[in-house]
Amino acid sequence: MPIAEPTDTQYAERIAASFARQTIMTLIGANLLEIAPGVVTITLPYRADLCQQHGFLHAGIITSIIDTACGFAALSLMPADTGVLSVEFKLNLLAPAVGDMFLAHGKVVRAGRTITVCTGEVIAMSGAKQNTIALMQATMMAVHGREGIKD
Amino acid sequence: MPIAEPTDTQYAERIAASFARQTIMTLIGANLLEIAPGVVTITLPYRADLCQQHGFLHAGIITSIIDTACGFAALSLMPADTGVLSVEFKLNLLAPAVGDMFLAHGKVVRAGRTITVCTGEVIAMSGAKQNTIALMQATMMAVHGREGIKD
Amino acid sequence: MPIAEPTDTQYAERIAASFARQTIMTLIGANLLEIAPGVVTITLPYRADLCQQHGFLHAGIITSIIDTACGFAALSLMPADTGVLSVEFKLNLLAPAVGDMFLAHGKVVRAGRTITVCTGEVIAMSGAKQNTIALMQATMMAVHGREGIKD
Amino acid sequence: MPIAEPTDTQYAERIAASFARQTIMTLIGANLLEIAPGVVTITLPYRADLCQQHGFLHAGIITSIIDTACGFAALSLMPADTGVLSVEFKLNLLAPAVGDMFLAHGKVVRAGRTITVCTGEVIAMSGAKQNTIALMQATMMAVHGREGIKD
Repeated sequence: MPIAEPTDTQYAERIAASFARQTIMTLIGANLLEIAPGVVTITLPYRADLCQQHGFLHAGIITSIIDTACGFAALSLMPADTGVLSVEFKLNLLAPAVGDMFLAHGKVVRAGRTITVCTGEVIAMSGAKQNTIALMQATMMAVHGREGIKD
Repeated sequence: MPIAEPTDTQYAERIAASFARQTIMTLIGANLLEIAPGVVTITLPYRADLCQQHGFLHAGIITSIIDTACGFAALSLMPADTGVLSVEFKLNLLAPAVGDMFLAHGKVVRAGRTITVCTGEVIAMSGAKQNTIALMQATMMAVHGREGIKD
Repeated sequence: MPIAEPTDTQYAERIAASFARQTIMTLIGANLLEIAPGVVTITLPYRADLCQQHGFLHAGIITSIIDTACGFAALSLMPADTGVLSVEFKLNLLAPAVGDMFLAHGKVVRAGRTITVCTGEVIAMSGAKQNTIALMQATMMAVHGREGIKD
Repeated sequence: MPIAEPTDTQYAERIAASFARQTIMTLIGANLLEIAPGVVTITLPYRADLCQQHGFLHAGIITSIIDTACGFAALSLMPADTGVLSVEFKLNLLAPAVGDMFLAHGKVVRAGRTITVCTGEVIAMSGAKQNTIALMQATMMAVHGREGIKD
């Protein structure tokens, strides 16, 4: 599927600035790895204080990085005067979230004027071994001219 | 819909102990408010370091508390020798997550031998005002006899 | 949660007319049972030609009636000059779809200007016995002034 | 991601026989186009009696073919003595379902002993033009030794 061209040529700076305002990313130690038209990747090193009861990365933290990756992938194709909000998402957990480092890839599948649909994948890396541990399908919304919601 | 009776009479202690092992709950400042058969409620005070770019609670943090509430609601009806894992969930964000305190109510809709289906609701409280900001529908799985996955 | 009042006083006639144009409802034998503000119920008698391989009602037919019920529940609160489209939905199948008659209840949880979130429940009736067999969480969209999409 | 090898060498015959028992596929005019390990494709010609109120293919019919494609994709990797059931699915509707012919591709993403996760895509064909109109993420379950649920 062809992805629409970015209409805001400053999309990468805009996403980087918006990511920097996400205080939760600082708290958990996540980083922006890649910004391209319709694609954003975020990395998160494993930390023992981000886990559920069995020592796996908590599903909410997996969601944090992949929702952010999908949202910014959607934002990369939106006009300059908009903000992005998550309408909803669905996450399947494919395997226990065990690894040294986690990569969250968000990708636009269909960009509309109001609604953008994304898919996301979270990969756990343990040394040279890679394992896809989660799959997201998400609906993002472009918000125009609402106070406080601008990226 | 009638909910099955707990088969493990120690379910509340077991859930409290499992919650205490969720290191992410400590990091974000969440607390267990209520444990009943098929129902768990978690509270989270607002903190500026848990937010997305517009200053709302990040969807991943909303997910963290409501996924945990749903998972433990499911666990409350499972036998003593099992662990609970999230298979998948879907979250709709109904309104910006603005408030002083957030309540995540998880509830069992159907408890099966392997699969338990839950619904969850997150309520934002700002003084006396309440607002439902998120809705979850989740699928949980009882895990029997797998090493490292016991609650 | 309080549901907004209908802004179109002719909402019931409008939904009935729109339902009558859904040719699939005629093909499968579904009927409109109830139209109220933010609530629509559809009935479907069991038929052997609507089944999957084990003789249960096919998940796609369950989806047909509950998606329609949710969509029209959303439409009941939309202005007169709009159409309704399903953005997405998620369906959990709680039990095999066995029964003489199926009731699909769709209900608005949050009605916004563009996005309306609904929940839906499908109940199988076998004589006096009732069983909730499916649960939906759905996102509907109001469409303004797009040719061919008006209800 | 590598897909597990089929353990049942007769998987194609088994899926074809199970598809033939899905009476709804006959009613709507759907056909099995492709069966491969972890992949199933179903076709459906447009018919005016399968539509919603605007003349687009109804979301429940789109769901019927893509849920069946995902379910049989999952079944292709399951042992011979099992049946497949849909636990849940989520469908995003990307564009109005307009076309002469619809293709539903279901694909296994992760095959487990009990739970298999699939993704599905529905493509509308209008002459030489193709358009992806729907995206599914689904959870399937292998059922062992339950009477009446065998494929």
